[in-house]
Amino acid sequence: MSAPNRNVLWGRALVDELARGGVGAVVVSPGSRSTPLVTAVEEHDDLHVFSVLDERSAAYFALGRARRTGEVTPLICTSGTAAANYHPAVIEADRGRVPLLLLTADRPPELRDSGANQTVDQEKLYGDAVRWYADLPEPEADERKLRSLRTTVGRALADATGTPSGPVHLNCPFRKPLEPTPVPGDVPADLDSLAVAGRDGGRPFVTTTAGVPRLDRADLGRVAEALSVERGLIVAGPADPPGVDAQALAALAHATGFPIVADPLSGLRFGGHTRVTTTVGGYDGYLDPRVTDSWPDPEVVLRIGGSPTSKRLRNYLARVDARGFVVDPAGEWREASFRATDLVVADPSRLAARLAEVVSGAGDPDWRERWATADRTHRDVVADATDDGAGGYFEGAILADVADLAPEPATLVVSNSNPVRDADRYMAPTDAGYTVLGNRGASGIDGVVSTALGAGSATTDHLSLVIGDLAYYHDGNGLLSALRCGVDATIVLIDNDGGGIFHRLPIESFDPPFTEAFRTPHGLDFEPTADFYDLGYAAVEDRAGFRDAYAESVASDGTDVIDVRTDGEASQRTRERLVEETVAELAE
Amino acid sequence: MSAPNRNVLWGRALVDELARGGVGAVVVSPGSRSTPLVTAVEEHDDLHVFSVLDERSAAYFALGRARRTGEVTPLICTSGTAAANYHPAVIEADRGRVPLLLLTADRPPELRDSGANQTVDQEKLYGDAVRWYADLPEPEADERKLRSLRTTVGRALADATGTPSGPVHLNCPFRKPLEPTPVPGDVPADLDSLAVAGRDGGRPFVTTTAGVPRLDRADLGRVAEALSVERGLIVAGPADPPGVDAQALAALAHATGFPIVADPLSGLRFGGHTRVTTTVGGYDGYLDPRVTDSWPDPEVVLRIGGSPTSKRLRNYLARVDARGFVVDPAGEWREASFRATDLVVADPSRLAARLAEVVSGAGDPDWRERWATADRTHRDVVADATDDGAGGYFEGAILADVADLAPEPATLVVSNSNPVRDADRYMAPTDAGYTVLGNRGASGIDGVVSTALGAGSATTDHLSLVIGDLAYYHDGNGLLSALRCGVDATIVLIDNDGGGIFHRLPIESFDPPFTEAFRTPHGLDFEPTADFYDLGYAAVEDRAGFRDAYAESVASDGTDVIDVRTDGEASQRTRERLVEETVAELAE
Repeated sequence: MSAPNRNVLWGRALVDELARGGVGAVVVSPGSRSTPLVTAVEEHDDLHVFSVLDERSAAYFALGRARRTGEVTPLICTSGTAAANYHPAVIEADRGRVPLLLLTADRPPELRDSGANQTVDQEKLYGDAVRWYADLPEPEADERKLRSLRTTVGRALADATGTPSGPVHLNCPFRKPLEPTPVPGDVPADLDSLAVAGRDGGRPFVTTTAGVPRLDRADLGRVAEALSVERGLIVAGPADPPGVDAQALAALAHATGFPIVADPLSGLRFGGHTRVTTTVGGYDGYLDPRVTDSWPDPEVVLRIGGSPTSKRLRNYLARVDARGFVVDPAGEWREASFRATDLVVADPSRLAARLAEVVSGAGDPDWRERWATADRTHRDVVADATDDGAGGYFEGAILADVADLAPEPATLVVSNSNPVRDADRYMAPTDAGYTVLGNRGASGIDGVVSTALGAGSATTDHLSLVIGDLAYYHDGNGLLSALRCGVDATIVLIDNDGGGIFHRLPIESFDPPFTEAFRTPHGLDFEPTADFYDLGYAAVEDRAGFRDAYAESVASDGTDVIDVRTDGEASQRTRERLVEETVAELAE
Repeated sequence: MSAPNRNVLWGRALVDELARGGVGAVVVSPGSRSTPLVTAVEEHDDLHVFSVLDERSAAYFALGRARRTGEVTPLICTSGTAAANYHPAVIEADRGRVPLLLLTADRPPELRDSGANQTVDQEKLYGDAVRWYADLPEPEADERKLRSLRTTVGRALADATGTPSGPVHLNCPFRKPLEPTPVPGDVPADLDSLAVAGRDGGRPFVTTTAGVPRLDRADLGRVAEALSVERGLIVAGPADPPGVDAQALAALAHATGFPIVADPLSGLRFGGHTRVTTTVGGYDGYLDPRVTDSWPDPEVVLRIGGSPTSKRLRNYLARVDARGFVVDPAGEWREASFRATDLVVADPSRLAARLAEVVSGAGDPDWRERWATADRTHRDVVADATDDGAGGYFEGAILADVADLAPEPATLVVSNSNPVRDADRYMAPTDAGYTVLGNRGASGIDGVVSTALGAGSATTDHLSLVIGDLAYYHDGNGLLSALRCGVDATIVLIDNDGGGIFHRLPIESFDPPFTEAFRTPHGLDFEPTADFYDLGYAAVEDRAGFRDAYAESVASDGTDVIDVRTDGEASQRTRERLVEETVAELAE
């Protein structure tokens, strides 16, 4: 463990503690100031290094990986605006509770605000979006400082995976020499070996053992009692990494007799539990007042995860007169219509398992059947309307096809804007082995390609990404990771030449400015992007063509882009028509 | 001025004050929450709207435009991570003193931290990087609130162009309806007309008249006295927008007899003043201790602008024993080697003009001639070494060729990393009508394409951009503005397959990790990027080919990419060899 200079010693100690703390992969962007960290991760045998040139894409790649695994993914960048490029993903990681560790190299403190080149104010760069921020001291071959460094890394990893998990930022100043040039006398030969080499047996320098919030028996009983009613709903919004325990939720659904209303990102839309529960997924296609005004209200709603993607679902939950439980291990009040009445600070999976044992199920079978019927009606209407060849080609049908054709196991990443909404409405619950992921923390379209490829980097699952053309363009740089990080994917590009989602909004009626300022048609042909990154490419213009191209891509190696040319306005009209038909049928 | 609802009224009042305050162009990215602002700029007759889909590129486009004009360029984006994508350019604008106004739409306050979709903490999102931050109140058709809004806009524009100029952030919450849907009673008919329609005659609601720091006669006399010596230097670093007055600086150079050491971004490298002053530009090729140890030290150094690009120049200035004046109107101490002795808080152009009248020039002609000779020797060595056909093809020669061949007037944008350094060393001072721009505030490579096209959008100059392949890749999205914003450019892509600049650094000797983690060769062929954005494209592999392609592009309309395939390592060896030759000649 002899080091040629203090920076090498420091970088190695930091990286050593990452590996001891369970980190398996690091995402690095090129730069000079970060040299001591980069050389240390490169020389470490147990770390997989992903090199991503654009820091914005790098951060989303790490986010995707951490979202898929639930494990902290560190990032390393140089000083200056490089670090600011992480900011969008940091915000998504904050809101989406994804564990990241941002290691931003910096110039030494005396150069801050001195006019020195590439020196900006990196202190607390991400504001309140990080769980913890620390400005590391300057490297020194000093026992106390090295102990402090190893402890800081342990703390950072613990905070990133705490409750709620999220991003942590360590700002890392270095002075020259940054490379492993020998500096005689810089590292004393008699330095304490524990500080230099870390603990024996590969153990971390410090370990955090954190309890999770757990209700006492009396409180548990009171919640169970509130759930012991005829009509209730278990509403599962987008899951926090590493996801929920489907079996525990299924047990609760079984004990209460309540349907599970499963957001596509809840981790409950697909899986074996759907065989033994009433898991509904079509609600965004029928929860209209014309339908639900004749329904009895649920007496209780138990929410887990983030805010559901479906606005119709959120509006329905805001309309009904029900006791509303929000279960959140971090004690955050994630319910933006302010209808919740009870916040339960507990881990949702463990709470569900415990509640399942004590609730006295009084669930009304008619209530479950009502939801099951509605879901089935929605599915039938959609199937009838889209199975007739040409008429079946609209954006929602593409999402249904992906759920139909993806191999198992698969990780399916759905972009914000229309794809996640179409996944919500048109990917019916099944027992398929699918993990569906999306960035619903802040719902940006800015890093979706990288998020998908990062998720894919962590698994041997098949990886499909469904993405609109604006999001695909926005993180086009992310495609480089298919080449450089060796991730294979099938990219389903829903290409409607601009922001199709704006057709959902009232501004559609005001043109100008609708077309130029909102839908923003760009006229881009995306085939050259596939050439640029050496990806397979197929353009399709009908449903059979899509299904063939998708099946072919799934069966082959490498990354393919299937450019699904659609009419955004017509697709929106189809969505509206299908809702009308379903609502009409259910309102009868 | 009747408005269908309060949001329309509010958006119009805000945008109206922008136009009254002198804003001529706004950069807009698509989104929904920002609808009241976007519709207002779209309907305003006096505002040019640039629609840029990627917010990171949008902010750099605005930055380039504001850098070129010195005028505030507002940006509009939707809520969420969109706003965080502005952060890199905001940091560059802060450090580079470029006036921007960030108008970030937001959800209403009660939704913050409520778990609501696309709702993040946008308060003080850019930390201390902005000159002023205000969270606007929610729109209301209320006289006091509208007066406050109009005043706030006036203040924001004044702060963005204050001393120092820079970015200002107004966070703009809106609740639905966002589009111009009539809301009966939302806007009272009898609302005060001044608040609604603004002041008569198109005047701004409020006007700021700001003095600039000006020395009193005694202080001026003391500075002049210090400059009344034999040997001095006027060191002009990268200029703050809107640039310096070359005539004033030339007058000071004339009065003192000092050479002007002109950074390529100082605004003094090119122009008519070079005919009547000793303006040097080759210093990065010869300021070696082997040369300068035999030179007498300057007695005084007067610095204006930011920290010079040239490390050899900075090191030289740190070596010499001279009284060091830093002139900065904002009173910031922009001198990171801590050799300055005197901070002068004054506008550099006005101070130079006043000093020129009172300084008693004692400048030693031998001192000037020493610098002129060194510069000429450098130029001759470079010319001799690069005029011999194949041997003349290295990256530095490309920059020299651009300075040789660009038409006048031209705006030349040089990327960070190698291009700005090669511009520094190989673009010799001439009287050409060139405006040379670069992002030396934070020296990132992340938004250079957009910066160039934004600068080009503000001028009828010919526009050339010289950029390395990593920077070109990083802001590839920025190329869309050539299409959508109608900016023509000649893009000189110095394509050495990765980070050629790392060959300058000691880490080059450590491989691994040098190649994979630092130089990061990507093997990308950039021709498809030109196809994607419908740009002209030519790949060149020798100097004559480059000169032909460049001349052809200059003579034609539209945007072209000239892919100059170079060997990064060989180019670095050529740079080093030329310095050695120049130093050897001068050290004789």
